[in-house]
Amino acid sequence: MNMSEKPLRVGLAGLGTVGAGVVKLLDENAELVQRRASRPIVITAVSARDRSRDRGIDLGRFAWEDNAPDLAARDDVDAVVELIGGSDGPALATARATFNAGKGLVTANKAMLAHHGLDLSALAEKSGSALKFEAAVAGGIPVIKGLREGLAANRVDAVYGILNGTCNFILSAMEQDGKPFAEVLAEAQALGYAEADPTFDIDGIDAAHKLSILSALAFGTRLNFPAVSIAGIRNVSPTDIDYARALGYRIRLIGLAKMEAGGLFQRVHPCLVPLNHPLAHVTSSLNAVVAEGNYVGRLLFQGRGAGEGPTASAVVADLVDVARGEWGAPFAMPAASLTDAPPADPAQHVGRYYIRLTVVDRPGVLADVTAVLRDYEVSVESVIQRGGAPDGAVYFVLTTHAGPQRAVTDALDRLAALDSVTTPPVMMHILDL
Amino acid sequence: MNMSEKPLRVGLAGLGTVGAGVVKLLDENAELVQRRASRPIVITAVSARDRSRDRGIDLGRFAWEDNAPDLAARDDVDAVVELIGGSDGPALATARATFNAGKGLVTANKAMLAHHGLDLSALAEKSGSALKFEAAVAGGIPVIKGLREGLAANRVDAVYGILNGTCNFILSAMEQDGKPFAEVLAEAQALGYAEADPTFDIDGIDAAHKLSILSALAFGTRLNFPAVSIAGIRNVSPTDIDYARALGYRIRLIGLAKMEAGGLFQRVHPCLVPLNHPLAHVTSSLNAVVAEGNYVGRLLFQGRGAGEGPTASAVVADLVDVARGEWGAPFAMPAASLTDAPPADPAQHVGRYYIRLTVVDRPGVLADVTAVLRDYEVSVESVIQRGGAPDGAVYFVLTTHAGPQRAVTDALDRLAALDSVTTPPVMMHILDL
Repeated sequence: MNMSEKPLRVGLAGLGTVGAGVVKLLDENAELVQRRASRPIVITAVSARDRSRDRGIDLGRFAWEDNAPDLAARDDVDAVVELIGGSDGPALATARATFNAGKGLVTANKAMLAHHGLDLSALAEKSGSALKFEAAVAGGIPVIKGLREGLAANRVDAVYGILNGTCNFILSAMEQDGKPFAEVLAEAQALGYAEADPTFDIDGIDAAHKLSILSALAFGTRLNFPAVSIAGIRNVSPTDIDYARALGYRIRLIGLAKMEAGGLFQRVHPCLVPLNHPLAHVTSSLNAVVAEGNYVGRLLFQGRGAGEGPTASAVVADLVDVARGEWGAPFAMPAASLTDAPPADPAQHVGRYYIRLTVVDRPGVLADVTAVLRDYEVSVESVIQRGGAPDGAVYFVLTTHAGPQRAVTDALDRLAALDSVTTPPVMMHILDL
Repeated sequence: MNMSEKPLRVGLAGLGTVGAGVVKLLDENAELVQRRASRPIVITAVSARDRSRDRGIDLGRFAWEDNAPDLAARDDVDAVVELIGGSDGPALATARATFNAGKGLVTANKAMLAHHGLDLSALAEKSGSALKFEAAVAGGIPVIKGLREGLAANRVDAVYGILNGTCNFILSAMEQDGKPFAEVLAEAQALGYAEADPTFDIDGIDAAHKLSILSALAFGTRLNFPAVSIAGIRNVSPTDIDYARALGYRIRLIGLAKMEAGGLFQRVHPCLVPLNHPLAHVTSSLNAVVAEGNYVGRLLFQGRGAGEGPTASAVVADLVDVARGEWGAPFAMPAASLTDAPPADPAQHVGRYYIRLTVVDRPGVLADVTAVLRDYEVSVESVIQRGGAPDGAVYFVLTTHAGPQRAVTDALDRLAALDSVTTPPVMMHILDL
């Protein structure tokens, strides 16, 4: 507990949307933050690429550093906020300089944490400094704190959720308007919900960065970003959204980490979410995270996962923790005591699946298809067959009972080779938690 | 940050369901808790009313105290967990003894906090001790931490939610089965979802205790339980549940605290929740809390609000914070800096309302009713008129646009006096956040 009433003096690296939001928040809510932290939190120095850009905030009152890492060495800086972004380069240099100076770091940088979180955590511990990153996952939702502290008493069995607002905005809009992906993406870009280069978002990389951070916190395991199996939403079609709806599901990009007998299963995939699951009702750009603990049961955290206000809220909440002296090992336990979990073999994963085949409309085809499924011991739960496919073909859509993924992928390989199956089969996971 | 590896030794007062759950959790998850806390957390001494009762746990390994407050003075106790219950008596004596001994207290006792939280907070601060109470509100959901820390950067404009699982279980069951309150209550009692004496739950007192705690944390105000306006669910009828459904709402017992121009508005009332609000989808005995912050926007926390596992999870999470040394002012800021908020006058509250009148079925009645509403400037949003009332009467159901509560209650007084209105009018708030 830190009852000092001296200000916490902050060096702010990065003055994009979130950086400007942090300045505005600390201005607007200054008195409240001071009461809650029992001391003022004040920005003393800033650094950004372009000093002259108009950000709608008065920067004249702050000292300026051209070189972000130099913030750390300043006598008038007690803690550094890193909002530069990028897994390496100046962001990483700033983080290292901060710990070398024995000061606390608050960051929103999921890419840097996914790649270097373990090293940075060890550095922070060695220098006795705070490393806080609430804003790195799910924006304003206090889910890092929820896992690190709220669930500290639980064996966590699974952590999963909607971790990318851009993808959820696009999927919600496709669902509502029936428009194809490319069209909705262009609209989302025009509205500012998707970036000019949307790759990190729509290909699931951003969600995977976040998932690897949640995994480490939830399971006490070493961050292992390369082990995350990643698929984005480019190939989600209005056709699959319609069939999912008919079957009682909505399609969401789900990041899911689960400790299984064979190891740690981490994936980011479009997924069918049953309507009776709270994640099915998370629409637009909202984020939501579910954690399942062996004592607490299912916990849901939901809110705004990105944007100036929510992200600034999380950054300043971290600063309040630093100002209060209420912080410890960044990943809930010392970096050295995080364990290596072998990645689970996705082929061994037991789950339920959605399959859509495009088949020619002639007698005997269904018998062929169902015979293959039987041969591979894929147990079918429900089936819809309908016309509407191009060239007079028919869609044959089914959901499976729980079974090993390998059986399904093997069966699909066999089915794809049939003359009567005209396009590559579509397969998606069904959320069965 | 406390990097000591010495065990945190706990004295446990109260061995009911939750106390037994804490013992089981610390047994089952011992290794995990030790890794997360960087030190073991061990119970050394216990106290309860009845030493011989079989609780399914081995008590022989713990020292026994007949008198709970005596736990605090023991040399082998660093922190006390109070699970006795009751706002005064041995629970309060144990809390005071703990702070007098300069030790930390973890409690699930919302009644004690609602009545004595301010004094206890001041005592804890004076003695430099922790006072933690995550389990007191919404069971396993880390909402105390969410408000105290996660939202620390925000001006909170409103905090509200479903704070009593028994009431939500009953209302959900009434909604599903169309049965009257008394019948569902009896079933809930048989299933263990309601206590033999359900007064505290169904009359809204338990939710009001919790709301007054959330208020203090959210607004930085002194706890003011007597200022909470309280109505329970005894008078919610299947008829109103049906009309609410027809109008696009579900009825929930909502605890709501909101800072308004005229002061702090705190109420626990049955409330119509629109179907597009996440609280409408919280069913069975689940709890959920929403906080609206000026930077973060709307945050939702949802999970299990009671029971052995979830409550033990919250108690031990608090112990982990204590073991880590990550704690500070119990109500987010020192008790002395909490301010007095004048209670808002409910009559001045501007809101939307649901009104059900039972009227005789004869010409001119509707004209009389609507004339009264016009005279009191109550602006009607939607109307349903249907038969089905006893004695051939008709139900006249309406929802209002936002307006002052006083206008509605005055209009209802006038309406109740009409010959054509045969039973006292029913009025409920509509959640418009």
